[in-house]
Amino acid sequence: MTNTPAQPMKEFEFIEWIRGQSHLDPAVVPVGPGDDTAVVMCGNEKVMITVDQLLDGVHFKLLEAGAKATGGKAMARSLSDVAAMAALPLGAVVSVALPKGMAREDAEDLYSGMRKVGEKFRCPIVGGDVGVWPGPLAIGVTIFARPAGIRPVLRSGAKVGDAICVTGSFGGAWKTTRHLKCIPRIHEARILASRHELRSMIDVSDGLASDLGHICKSSCVGAEINAAAVPIHADAKNDPSDPTGLRGALSDGEDYELLFTLPPNQAAALVGDQPLTVRVSRIGTIVAGEGMTLIRPDGQRESLAPRGWEHKT
Amino acid sequence: MTNTPAQPMKEFEFIEWIRGQSHLDPAVVPVGPGDDTAVVMCGNEKVMITVDQLLDGVHFKLLEAGAKATGGKAMARSLSDVAAMAALPLGAVVSVALPKGMAREDAEDLYSGMRKVGEKFRCPIVGGDVGVWPGPLAIGVTIFARPAGIRPVLRSGAKVGDAICVTGSFGGAWKTTRHLKCIPRIHEARILASRHELRSMIDVSDGLASDLGHICKSSCVGAEINAAAVPIHADAKNDPSDPTGLRGALSDGEDYELLFTLPPNQAAALVGDQPLTVRVSRIGTIVAGEGMTLIRPDGQRESLAPRGWEHKT
Repeated sequence: MTNTPAQPMKEFEFIEWIRGQSHLDPAVVPVGPGDDTAVVMCGNEKVMITVDQLLDGVHFKLLEAGAKATGGKAMARSLSDVAAMAALPLGAVVSVALPKGMAREDAEDLYSGMRKVGEKFRCPIVGGDVGVWPGPLAIGVTIFARPAGIRPVLRSGAKVGDAICVTGSFGGAWKTTRHLKCIPRIHEARILASRHELRSMIDVSDGLASDLGHICKSSCVGAEINAAAVPIHADAKNDPSDPTGLRGALSDGEDYELLFTLPPNQAAALVGDQPLTVRVSRIGTIVAGEGMTLIRPDGQRESLAPRGWEHKT
Repeated sequence: MTNTPAQPMKEFEFIEWIRGQSHLDPAVVPVGPGDDTAVVMCGNEKVMITVDQLLDGVHFKLLEAGAKATGGKAMARSLSDVAAMAALPLGAVVSVALPKGMAREDAEDLYSGMRKVGEKFRCPIVGGDVGVWPGPLAIGVTIFARPAGIRPVLRSGAKVGDAICVTGSFGGAWKTTRHLKCIPRIHEARILASRHELRSMIDVSDGLASDLGHICKSSCVGAEINAAAVPIHADAKNDPSDPTGLRGALSDGEDYELLFTLPPNQAAALVGDQPLTVRVSRIGTIVAGEGMTLIRPDGQRESLAPRGWEHKT
């Protein structure tokens, strides 16, 4: 233990350091840290696994959100990672650190909120660990899943020329209760991946630009985004400093929509068909090189930083 | 949210309530909440999964333990649950909520401590979630495992007449740093389960009496323990209020030894053979009915409450 932080913690740098420490056998762990789920061989079966934590004061405010919605969001966030691999959930284990003095009714609501969202996606809670402590509410939801006939869609498969597509619309999720009610796109991802050659996919949690940046970095490619094609949620349009809502759509995050790439002819068919209950839009193209470019309606090009909303603590 | 706790939280009651809420399909989830790991069918393979959390101020004190030992204990605790099923670990995912202001070096030590213990048992960290927050350090370690040719040993299989055995010795782990350096009995459990008909097993985390109580309750049986046969750790013997250390051995917990039952003739062979590097002792017998009895060296019998150390918050 060092009592004086000689080197203050930078979350993303620390995560990069952790990834650099991993030396995994690809025959046992085909996909390690750095994608939406890990993929591990269990006998002849692939098992996929992911954990996400929800921390009071960082990812939600318990007093504003309420216990039931908080539980629902915790489950939905982890399910969204499973969706991003086009996998089917098998079950969840949850760890919950309850603040001392939390009412029993609230703890029950929290659990019921998790269970209800899990059940919608056939993801039962099969185990967990509950403790009471002097700290704020902390929830960890681990989900394990299986490919069930569909090859896991990684972040690293984007190819130059791929169309970049998204489900739904973006921005402002934090300004309303939308982020608490996010719908993990499990069904949508299965339909998309079973009909089309999805080359890469991620769920948009950090922000559209930031999560596209993850795909580009993992795939060693760049991207061009057509500003006019980005579907902007109504929640993003009430900000005087961002009248079109584009900035919010690109950086707010917490949308939990799918962002994926596929061959352009398949994207054209998909956008024509609209096989989902949520709209699919093509927003750009994967290009050679590094970095992302935003193309304004007047043709003006500007560099797009892979910057999303970073949790303030 | 209720701001005034109408019904204050009682951890164990809440966990019982959660178990009552589970309605799982036994064809998909052969073992749900209430054992050391859940067992879930993934295609044709059984996958076992468990999560344990380590909370600063409840399960350890960061300033006393140091970051590396804390990380090691977090991994070892979850591995001990895998050992209790006689399973082989496949990998771990970890969630870590780092207190704002924690030094980068400490965060690295924490991770290295987890990784090092994981590597000893071929349990790589394959993914995780790291966040910085205003709360104390909270760690969740989820491990998934596989039976690998050995039928999972549950808590619920104890039969009347079974011998009750343990590995190692008990008591006082909290008085020293022993609880931080606990050795998950993965190898020992595999050897025991491959040579003998283990009918039930648990790892001793709450305390010998408490964890034996879990076996009795799950198996609908009672137990008799011979006080003179309980192996007492030297750490338990320095308490003037408990000069023999028996009380500590029965209730201190955090020993992370195996507690298991098997047919008495097999127990006799096992205790004669001593095939492990840690000593195996027979401490009692499973009996019909409910409740546990402690038999003193003079033949005096007293009721043994299934009471272990409960985390104070």
